[in-house]
Amino acid sequence: MRKLHVFNMVSLDGFFTDARGDMSWAHRRDPEWTEFSSGNASGQGELMFGRVTYEMMAAFWPTPQAAQMLPEVAVGMNAMRKYVISRTLEAATWQNTTLLKGDLATDVRALKAEPGPDIVILGSGTIVSQLTAAKLIDGYQLVLSPTVLGKGRTLFETVPERLGLTLTKTRAFQNGNVVLWYELA
Amino acid sequence: MRKLHVFNMVSLDGFFTDARGDMSWAHRRDPEWTEFSSGNASGQGELMFGRVTYEMMAAFWPTPQAAQMLPEVAVGMNAMRKYVISRTLEAATWQNTTLLKGDLATDVRALKAEPGPDIVILGSGTIVSQLTAAKLIDGYQLVLSPTVLGKGRTLFETVPERLGLTLTKTRAFQNGNVVLWYELA
Repeated sequence: MRKLHVFNMVSLDGFFTDARGDMSWAHRRDPEWTEFSSGNASGQGELMFGRVTYEMMAAFWPTPQAAQMLPEVAVGMNAMRKYVISRTLEAATWQNTTLLKGDLATDVRALKAEPGPDIVILGSGTIVSQLTAAKLIDGYQLVLSPTVLGKGRTLFETVPERLGLTLTKTRAFQNGNVVLWYELA
Repeated sequence: MRKLHVFNMVSLDGFFTDARGDMSWAHRRDPEWTEFSSGNASGQGELMFGRVTYEMMAAFWPTPQAAQMLPEVAVGMNAMRKYVISRTLEAATWQNTTLLKGDLATDVRALKAEPGPDIVILGSGTIVSQLTAAKLIDGYQLVLSPTVLGKGRTLFETVPERLGLTLTKTRAFQNGNVVLWYELA
């Protein structure tokens, strides 16, 4: 069974997006951080998104602007196999993307049972929250930004009960980000 | 000018207390953690609370149960100079406690200008949030617990705008807690 992981930036008050859906506060580029985040998009895994994050990603990564700003990451993001979870989307036009329209837990269980590399969910708070409640996420890689937002959305807003995770690794960066690796306890 | 610091446990989704005001999820005792948290209550600084946290602390630390469970911490907590911020409290009966009933920012500015050791706020989400907005907190020591709560209260719920902090230190513990030190940027 392959694994499903979450990779997300969160603010110091626990939000992956602010009250207006803005995630631009999360960008703190410097050579150390760029090297780390580029390595994450090296094309070795597969990606999963909810509709909102998918539409944001699909509108950016295939563009010449993306190729200019972050060339290696853009190549990786476009080349990787991607899944978008949505009942309203008609078609997924970003290259190498499969649209999943069925029951979320059933679709994700089937996908995890297929042979293939591990899958990473980026952004996609609603999906993260639902899949966490269904205990279908094996690991969480959270990037804690040294930023307070005041208001926003957490990744776990529909989780119905306390969930204890196991910390496996941490790494602090010069730009103030701290990356934290957790697994299901 | 002495410094005002925050020391608080927060869940992975950013909450210092769950939706029912319960903070018991934050306790993860083992020898390493007990040594660290006991050292924090060594009696060298002063403490500040809002009313809710004060009443919880004042009902516990002076009791024989506290002396039995965490003897060193109890001695420290009772001996330290303490301030409680409240407009409704009539008197503060816990030993060495001063009740501050005036304008929050004015009182805290005056207190910081007095000679004395640094002051640490424990719990007290409402006070932390208001003093953060007033830029009166110099540093934040957050203990990130490997626990998802789903719902709760953040320490920054009334902060009106984005606030960037500077990460100065991190320490990961065997029990999964990660302690993060931040200063005002």
